[in-house]
Amino acid sequence: MAVKGTGAYNPENIFAKILRGDIPCKKVFENEWVLAFQDIAPKAAVHVLVIPKNPYVSFIDFTKTASEAEIAGVMKAASLIASDLGLEESGYRVITNAGENSGQEVPHFHLHLLGGQPLPPFPV
Amino acid sequence: MAVKGTGAYNPENIFAKILRGDIPCKKVFENEWVLAFQDIAPKAAVHVLVIPKNPYVSFIDFTKTASEAEIAGVMKAASLIASDLGLEESGYRVITNAGENSGQEVPHFHLHLLGGQPLPPFPV
Repeated sequence: MAVKGTGAYNPENIFAKILRGDIPCKKVFENEWVLAFQDIAPKAAVHVLVIPKNPYVSFIDFTKTASEAEIAGVMKAASLIASDLGLEESGYRVITNAGENSGQEVPHFHLHLLGGQPLPPFPV
Repeated sequence: MAVKGTGAYNPENIFAKILRGDIPCKKVFENEWVLAFQDIAPKAAVHVLVIPKNPYVSFIDFTKTASEAEIAGVMKAASLIASDLGLEESGYRVITNAGENSGQEVPHFHLHLLGGQPLPPFPV
């Protein structure tokens, strides 16, 4: 069920629970800006979710309200994680879904990091 | 034909030519950091490409070498363009392909901005 990409942040969403430690995750990386963990229903050989530690509903409010340092920090973290996972040479795809038309499922901003195999032709 | 997401920048790629004005584009938006234009083979009702004015092969070198201000500037521009295009309420998807496994076609970093209709289920 797709969610809206705007509006008030709901602290009961599943990623907020993961950030609080109420729900476990298969952690891949963590720094001051992000937590990254394996998607529970991977769509590729490597499918990692990179989420900011701060509460943003989607890319929309993240880009509107986060500081330059945080926006850069999150993007640099995604790139670093891909490198750590050995995806830099072979390549990878980064996707974010914002709001209903995109099929965003969890109302906490997240980047999908996909790779480890040739990915289906764009935009798949 | 997919390209590598790392290595030296080739100033003869098609987006470099668009930035120089050697090839026309259907411009949507421009500011100090980015140029945005319609994809010539749109995969959705709205399909805009957002590219930095500076020469980066892919998300990989962009995130490694651009300043925090530029990284934030490019991401904020993508969000602003989506808003200008009326996509904020209905939602949209942002994708970047980096390197061969992703199917990246032009070796100049670009964000695909897709919306204007319900998009195929993730990760399409």
